[in-house]
Amino acid sequence: MPPISAKNLENGSRAQFLHMVGTMLALKAGRSLRLVRPGLHRTLSAHVAQTPIRDERFATLTDLDMVQFSSILDSTSIVTDDADLVAYNTDWMGRYHGHSKVVLKPRTTEQVAQVMAYCNERCIAVVPQGGNTGMVGGSVPVHDEVILSMSAMNNILSFDNADGVAMVEAGVVLEKLDDHVHPHGYRVPLNLGAKGSCQIGGNLATNAGGSRMVRDGPLRAAVLGMEAVLPDGRILNALTACRKDNTGYDVKQLFIGAEGTLGIITRASIACVPRATQAHTVALAVERFECVPKLLSAAKKHLGNSLAAFEYMDANSIRITQQLDHIASASIPVDHQVGTCWLLIEATNEEYMENFVEHALECGDAVDGVVAENETQANALWELRESMSEGIMRAGTGGVLKYDISLPIAKFEDCVTKTAERARNAAVIGETHVIGFGHIGDGNLHLNVGIGERKDTENVRAALEPWVYEYVQLQKGSISAEHGLGLMKAYAIGYSKSDVAVDLMRTIKNAVDPNGICNPYKVLT
Amino acid sequence: MPPISAKNLENGSRAQFLHMVGTMLALKAGRSLRLVRPGLHRTLSAHVAQTPIRDERFATLTDLDMVQFSSILDSTSIVTDDADLVAYNTDWMGRYHGHSKVVLKPRTTEQVAQVMAYCNERCIAVVPQGGNTGMVGGSVPVHDEVILSMSAMNNILSFDNADGVAMVEAGVVLEKLDDHVHPHGYRVPLNLGAKGSCQIGGNLATNAGGSRMVRDGPLRAAVLGMEAVLPDGRILNALTACRKDNTGYDVKQLFIGAEGTLGIITRASIACVPRATQAHTVALAVERFECVPKLLSAAKKHLGNSLAAFEYMDANSIRITQQLDHIASASIPVDHQVGTCWLLIEATNEEYMENFVEHALECGDAVDGVVAENETQANALWELRESMSEGIMRAGTGGVLKYDISLPIAKFEDCVTKTAERARNAAVIGETHVIGFGHIGDGNLHLNVGIGERKDTENVRAALEPWVYEYVQLQKGSISAEHGLGLMKAYAIGYSKSDVAVDLMRTIKNAVDPNGICNPYKVLT
Repeated sequence: MPPISAKNLENGSRAQFLHMVGTMLALKAGRSLRLVRPGLHRTLSAHVAQTPIRDERFATLTDLDMVQFSSILDSTSIVTDDADLVAYNTDWMGRYHGHSKVVLKPRTTEQVAQVMAYCNERCIAVVPQGGNTGMVGGSVPVHDEVILSMSAMNNILSFDNADGVAMVEAGVVLEKLDDHVHPHGYRVPLNLGAKGSCQIGGNLATNAGGSRMVRDGPLRAAVLGMEAVLPDGRILNALTACRKDNTGYDVKQLFIGAEGTLGIITRASIACVPRATQAHTVALAVERFECVPKLLSAAKKHLGNSLAAFEYMDANSIRITQQLDHIASASIPVDHQVGTCWLLIEATNEEYMENFVEHALECGDAVDGVVAENETQANALWELRESMSEGIMRAGTGGVLKYDISLPIAKFEDCVTKTAERARNAAVIGETHVIGFGHIGDGNLHLNVGIGERKDTENVRAALEPWVYEYVQLQKGSISAEHGLGLMKAYAIGYSKSDVAVDLMRTIKNAVDPNGICNPYKVLT
Repeated sequence: MPPISAKNLENGSRAQFLHMVGTMLALKAGRSLRLVRPGLHRTLSAHVAQTPIRDERFATLTDLDMVQFSSILDSTSIVTDDADLVAYNTDWMGRYHGHSKVVLKPRTTEQVAQVMAYCNERCIAVVPQGGNTGMVGGSVPVHDEVILSMSAMNNILSFDNADGVAMVEAGVVLEKLDDHVHPHGYRVPLNLGAKGSCQIGGNLATNAGGSRMVRDGPLRAAVLGMEAVLPDGRILNALTACRKDNTGYDVKQLFIGAEGTLGIITRASIACVPRATQAHTVALAVERFECVPKLLSAAKKHLGNSLAAFEYMDANSIRITQQLDHIASASIPVDHQVGTCWLLIEATNEEYMENFVEHALECGDAVDGVVAENETQANALWELRESMSEGIMRAGTGGVLKYDISLPIAKFEDCVTKTAERARNAAVIGETHVIGFGHIGDGNLHLNVGIGERKDTENVRAALEPWVYEYVQLQKGSISAEHGLGLMKAYAIGYSKSDVAVDLMRTIKNAVDPNGICNPYKVLT
């Protein structure tokens, strides 16, 4: 079937348009992206220079410590083999490498508590790790911190079919939970590309965002209760399933987004939401970027609370991602990329969506479009969108610089253009690829710079950092919209937070974790 | 027009039912409840026995302090007249009475900062006050604390029509903000009976809930940014308008729900949401309480994210509230109160609502119903619901004991029944009125006990406290769903929070407010 889209129609009438289909490969329905670890050759070796010096307050592991860990955990829960340690010591992007000698994989909260109490007493630093899918080096050791992997605490403890509340252990993979509640007519109000690998505990620790936040609101709103182990080993049981509980400070909020620096999240109760029976997905091409904010306003007006996603993909991000083998090259036909960018929009109400698309095309803000007529086609469009990190990684053989930022949406294109200019000028050897995509409905741009030749990485980085952060600061944006600070951006916190705010964070950190053993070197330097 | 409802129909067909109208008085459309302060005779004098002893760490105000305040604020911003002080010293219910000698009404954040810096240095205790509409004595002094009224900081600073973000000062009245954004097609995602009096700062400080949380989610999800003055006078500027910002701990979350014990909220940016063009409101009568949870499940399934409110009113709460002059006695016709309770349900999608009501009546879970055919009728139903606090206050001439609790919804009726039994047995003189209403869609019951004769108040209280809290604890509920702890429930925090959680709160309080000057005696004792 040849590609068909609105611009091919002699009379671009709504009825006709809405029943046509963009050519899409028949990808497996329901397939979600499982993160693939790239080869280590993509390591940005120059980063070593930025690694913080080891904090000498922390003890170095001794044989006695190992004996102690063995008294808490059985042997299958302790990893010390060098070959096995590599994956735990290395982040998903292959950029950050720790040197931990041991991974502990507790199966119960009590085991976590015993490990933390011991480490706190001995002043042994600990890095908690979930699916290790983070983008800022937050989930791997910097030096020889003990890795506390939550992957063995992966039980879904209960699900209340009437109320939609799931009680889970921290190591449950997001997609596993979503699959579990699906037959009951619910879904987890969080969706992101890494859903096949990331774990709930990590999602909470990083306050993960994702592609449906425009509908679902922030993740913290869905967390009803939490159990966490404090740095000194005490168990904080705040595992309520109440939707409302105004009895004192909502301390669990502190752990959401603290990236493991205040304690270890062990369990949580999550309010799942009714799964919409229908999802209507379209992609619209926009020729002049200034039409994008107008389309977002129109979408909010037409779609109301049926709006489920509003995503941005610039032309380069599509072109580069379509070079991946598993992406349908025709999901958005290349010869139809008349626009400077495409918007991927999902809504639950078909009539509203039809009205919106009609409006978008008739007023000329959108110049082309593709409508998914079934789940397979919708999945193909989403697979394109969710594979963009992978796409730029494949293209950037010399490494990828990733900036996850909040900006006024009117500045998305300008930011990408100026970044591309600076990157091009800074690259001595070979080409750079600069792409912009992301959750424009929430003002969240993923700005990715692929480096053509290895040597240029640090040249380009020097041209872009802190320039990008300065740009963001000038626009009153955020230098980390949803990825967190981790190790990568800890030094740059001042571009988004005031001195008093950072001081207050330090006050809290020092009060809750006086020995500083929880995920040191991250978030606050 | 005579009352008409489903049970009068010979064939209860959907089409006929949905076009019939319950008789309702033509109340002014859009009218909202302005809280009326009841007479002081309703004071529960016995409560004095429970008043905490004055903390001798705090300085007593001197003439020099007044001179200092006069150097920060102009004379119109300082209230010292005894007659004028009464209203600020007394809570809405007339239960709590402070003895403050001065009210400060700053107009700028800098003035708040100077006041706090001075008070912190002098160790003068401060109670922040918004609309003073709280239910737990949180917003009035216990002894001679300085009252910091935020009512003069009442400017709406900006509203972004494209993105829906409002930047406001803390003293803005909720309804004023809602009226401001209405013409732009937005609404504030918070709605409660006190909206005509309560202020945004107080809403945030108490993490206010209200009647649309089933749709809007928790208030904290709508707060994008905040400015607050710390106890030592430093200004925490976290006033971003970004929807996503994962740069370090989300410290503003600490102030949301802290009831003014960690600092003074001065400004906030609030994400308003598109105002639905339609609201469809029905009230359904239920004969057997066990049908209520089934109806809630069915409503979630049929109405999806068009469900905007799902409220519970037991028969007694309706009967008592309909005795108020301004309530339409026929809004729910008394002779049609066949059920043990009524549900007030609002949805934005008419078709879904029709399907749901048809289902509810056909399966027999609902036995009667009233459909609002226009805004005036819908307002009449809501006025009934929102006047219930006032209704029980009028009926309870000897005072009202108020319990705002979270419970598994299956326990709502049981809790009211058992409470009524205990209250009746404990009342030596006269009758008691026990009513239950609230946000059952969120599991939030307002259990109100009106005392017929004054003398019995403490008898009844002794029978119910801590019995009610023990009941809640047994059901794993919350002793304060949305009202906070304030002074009234501070001692009872342990019924809903673990020792470790309370310890962690204290650690935070001591770290942020080492002199303890911010709203002492509240939340944490």
